[in-house]
Amino acid sequence: MSTGHAAFEPPLSDRSTWQAHDRCSIGRAMQVVGSRSAMLLMREAFYGTRRFDDFADRVGITEAAAAKRLRELVDAGLLERTPYREPGQRTRHEYQLTPMGRDLLPAALALMQWGDGYLADDEGPPIVLRHADCGAPVAVEIRCAEGHDVPMHELRAGRPRRG
Amino acid sequence: MSTGHAAFEPPLSDRSTWQAHDRCSIGRAMQVVGSRSAMLLMREAFYGTRRFDDFADRVGITEAAAAKRLRELVDAGLLERTPYREPGQRTRHEYQLTPMGRDLLPAALALMQWGDGYLADDEGPPIVLRHADCGAPVAVEIRCAEGHDVPMHELRAGRPRRG
Repeated sequence: MSTGHAAFEPPLSDRSTWQAHDRCSIGRAMQVVGSRSAMLLMREAFYGTRRFDDFADRVGITEAAAAKRLRELVDAGLLERTPYREPGQRTRHEYQLTPMGRDLLPAALALMQWGDGYLADDEGPPIVLRHADCGAPVAVEIRCAEGHDVPMHELRAGRPRRG
Repeated sequence: MSTGHAAFEPPLSDRSTWQAHDRCSIGRAMQVVGSRSAMLLMREAFYGTRRFDDFADRVGITEAAAAKRLRELVDAGLLERTPYREPGQRTRHEYQLTPMGRDLLPAALALMQWGDGYLADDEGPPIVLRHADCGAPVAVEIRCAEGHDVPMHELRAGRPRRG
């Protein structure tokens, strides 16, 4: 088996001892946002969409699908459903990002960056994200707590250190 | 509408003019890796898994599901299927990451980081990633090309500049 091609080498000598599929955080994350419509609703929330009709319309899914997914995102803790009322109208609800929802941004941007690089059509990516302060384009990067950029081959997977 | 709660403010005055759902790179990315099993197969590829049996076993899906998803990931360009042969055995195939597959790593790590933060059980995350050179834990961060860390409220979405 050509382990020399591994993206990174886990220091655990026998992978069979740490089969992570039942507790894996990627698996748990994908159970919450592992559908195209859920991730696109989160994209819309990041762009500032709040109202139900806007979510359904801008993601391009049916109202029934939007209602189901938004309820799941509320139940999972990514969005908060709050009432609002305009003069002369009945009470409606809008959906706002929670801290848990906001913290999904790096994952959404990383997917966008990957899609921009490999899946965009000849016109290129439809949207570019820039840093407001300096105007430079923004990217998602892998860094360690010491501030080093970490290329894939310098990643090591291990068990957490417990006290 | 409470746009003051937007994660970031697009500089495009009217969101209705840039409905991106048909060309959105997040949407395109999710069409390729927007299922739990696809992302977990990619996780396994990052950890060094190469053989069909190992993929099915370690992700905890049926062989039929693994075969279908692996074929999709090969067709989409994330994995390459190559033959190998051990002495006395028939020819088998293994799956190796392509550059496109390797470049999905920030998205997979960002999902892991988010799952670690919000979805782990009382024991905490099962796996920690560290920088081989210095041992410090690794994180996915949003930075601009000038090297600034970019908090969510300093992100601006706009159309690409064309020559």
